[in-house]
Amino acid sequence: MMIKPQTPAGFWELTLAKQAIFNNVLRTVQKVYESNAFIQMDTPVMEYKDVLLAKSQGETSKQIFEVVKGDKEYVMRYDLTVPLSRFVAKYYNEIKFPFKRYQISKVYRGERPQKGRYREFYQADIDVIGNGKLSINYDAYVIATISEALSTLGISKYRIHINNRKIIQGLIEYLGIENSSNLFILIDKYDKLSKSQFEQELRELVTQAQAEELLRIMNMTDISVMSLKALHIENELFQEGICELEQVLQILKVLGVPMDRYMINLKIIRGLDYYTGTIFETFLEGYEQYGSISSGGRYANLANAYINKDLPGVGGSIGLSRLFSILDEIGFFEENTLFIAEEVEYLVVPIGKTSEEFAVKVLQKLKRDGVRADIYFEKVKPDKAIKYCIAHNIPNIIFIGEEEVSRRIAKIKNLDTRQESILML
Amino acid sequence: MMIKPQTPAGFWELTLAKQAIFNNVLRTVQKVYESNAFIQMDTPVMEYKDVLLAKSQGETSKQIFEVVKGDKEYVMRYDLTVPLSRFVAKYYNEIKFPFKRYQISKVYRGERPQKGRYREFYQADIDVIGNGKLSINYDAYVIATISEALSTLGISKYRIHINNRKIIQGLIEYLGIENSSNLFILIDKYDKLSKSQFEQELRELVTQAQAEELLRIMNMTDISVMSLKALHIENELFQEGICELEQVLQILKVLGVPMDRYMINLKIIRGLDYYTGTIFETFLEGYEQYGSISSGGRYANLANAYINKDLPGVGGSIGLSRLFSILDEIGFFEENTLFIAEEVEYLVVPIGKTSEEFAVKVLQKLKRDGVRADIYFEKVKPDKAIKYCIAHNIPNIIFIGEEEVSRRIAKIKNLDTRQESILML
Repeated sequence: MMIKPQTPAGFWELTLAKQAIFNNVLRTVQKVYESNAFIQMDTPVMEYKDVLLAKSQGETSKQIFEVVKGDKEYVMRYDLTVPLSRFVAKYYNEIKFPFKRYQISKVYRGERPQKGRYREFYQADIDVIGNGKLSINYDAYVIATISEALSTLGISKYRIHINNRKIIQGLIEYLGIENSSNLFILIDKYDKLSKSQFEQELRELVTQAQAEELLRIMNMTDISVMSLKALHIENELFQEGICELEQVLQILKVLGVPMDRYMINLKIIRGLDYYTGTIFETFLEGYEQYGSISSGGRYANLANAYINKDLPGVGGSIGLSRLFSILDEIGFFEENTLFIAEEVEYLVVPIGKTSEEFAVKVLQKLKRDGVRADIYFEKVKPDKAIKYCIAHNIPNIIFIGEEEVSRRIAKIKNLDTRQESILML
Repeated sequence: MMIKPQTPAGFWELTLAKQAIFNNVLRTVQKVYESNAFIQMDTPVMEYKDVLLAKSQGETSKQIFEVVKGDKEYVMRYDLTVPLSRFVAKYYNEIKFPFKRYQISKVYRGERPQKGRYREFYQADIDVIGNGKLSINYDAYVIATISEALSTLGISKYRIHINNRKIIQGLIEYLGIENSSNLFILIDKYDKLSKSQFEQELRELVTQAQAEELLRIMNMTDISVMSLKALHIENELFQEGICELEQVLQILKVLGVPMDRYMINLKIIRGLDYYTGTIFETFLEGYEQYGSISSGGRYANLANAYINKDLPGVGGSIGLSRLFSILDEIGFFEENTLFIAEEVEYLVVPIGKTSEEFAVKVLQKLKRDGVRADIYFEKVKPDKAIKYCIAHNIPNIIFIGEEEVSRRIAKIKNLDTRQESILML
């Protein structure tokens, strides 16, 4: 009985042609991370359940893939941040801070598979962790690195929306709003609601005056540090948030990130608990409905579930699988030749058994010359070998027959130009 | 309450210093595989249980990690060959044969963790799959690629032990031995038993005359194709095996694999069912007790659990985690400078808030010049910054103070030579 060779729904597997492009995307991001002095880390794909879920919320644990073996309970990692915090706690004495690491790996979430949402997918994370303190400039450094990665991929139409939790929290304090968690949840949903829906729900949470003031500030156009300062909101947290935001934007500028790649957006919230300062999300302009392709922010304490140390950090993550799917869907790779994989340049094809050894010598010679060459050992008709080249994007074919063996030469035929050249052995 | 930040026993996680070396090992192997025209593949880390275990033996399924989510049953992949067979069946119409793929990924086995055996570990696999037929020369091509990977890693003391299942099966037929599976199991254990133990167990399986003949052939010294031919064993399968072995050794020679890197070993068996022709295992000389670091062979049919096509193949796998552990344990990396990771060359350290922006400009300048540079944004004393450089292997430090800002220069101090040079902005 044959079994259908299917893969689980929502799990990440690409066809060969797309895999070659994805490899290039992944390696490009990796190179940018490394050129910015982030070092590569690798953690187990599953960890002990009680360790990985030490601080998890109810919502997270519903999405967990559980693994059972003997009397041990494991869970698959659902992000790369919790393993990072466990790692930093475990190797605290060995790590020199500030610790800059990257990790490009798959994570697992038992969500219902749908457009842009997978059950197994790649994330490409960078984080900087400080010991006791961490300069605000690293917030800009992380955002600049993410921006460089996206630019290096050839994407021009992305925009990083930056906010600072302190601004929003300060504003809420200043307006005397008490039920701030529900308000955060509502603001987080801003893009998913119509304007009137949002305003209606807002009025159920706050007074008429508070709602008007909130809406006035959140709907400000051409929002800038200057216009935020001009609000003269006398609240310490709010002012601290503005200062931090100003510094982040200033360093982003010095780091050479083009001004049209980022903007202030006070409606960016990023969940309830984790982030404490800078927060950001990134959208492809015209494709905002796919959701953020890269998000992150500043957190006060990375690892307090595992170690009694203050470890502030700032991080960012590119949703590599989601980004790839969007780019693929909008035809980005067809227009962008950057992503043609480094391919084999020559195919050596022995004709008949007696020419096999000489064909191998031709292959060796090409490899010594530093070009990528392959050999086709099957008995094959010339036109079928040429079809194989075309299918694999191999521009040159070299047939080795008796004549070539006796003269110790190889005739290179370029399939595009149809020109022939001779290689002497 | 703090949770201990431990990882599950037997799961692969390295300290930062070792991770940097491991990355280099992995990338070196990857480069060799790619230069030999194997293309990178990636499959989900877990698959449906009924799909992945379609052809599994009882022994395999005991080692499986099972994953449950809702009403679906998954298992973690325990090798990279079964996912390959599922992939080839699924994308059969898209694949151009012979299909040469590599995959370097983690696999999962619920074994008792011990030296050289992990529950999560890296394998680096190459396979060539034919459609209906596959030239014997690919057997040599796979072995030569594995050999090139090991040599490129700087390992000189490995030896690839090559056999052909047809030789052993033919010999058993010729000697009229009937219970061949138990004999295979016994020969497979040859290295684990003392000579007298082996002979005693052998005599329980076969007659005195059969045992003597088997031992005489298996214990031949300086075994070669010529000495095997000289046995004049009149059995078709045996002779076919000799012919294949001769061709493999001949092509290995033409492919430039040094003669002292491989040998014939008739005691190599590699399990009962899967392999049908060439088989090989690889040992580090002097460290044979760690087991094979790379094995593989020829199989008649890759994917007959999923598709009704003849798909013969030949593959090899480097046990990357095991190899790394052995090399680490024997001090290989300390003597081999190949494995110093490409590191940051310059650390820029602003002294005081007012010099931060100019420090970032120095960083940008260095990056534009194509060198890898990092910036240290924390307030730090010079001697502590120098310690940070030493810990991270960064040879040059650049302090940016008021003088540098006003003169728009950067003084580069080399920490090895103590020489200073000036960079103009």
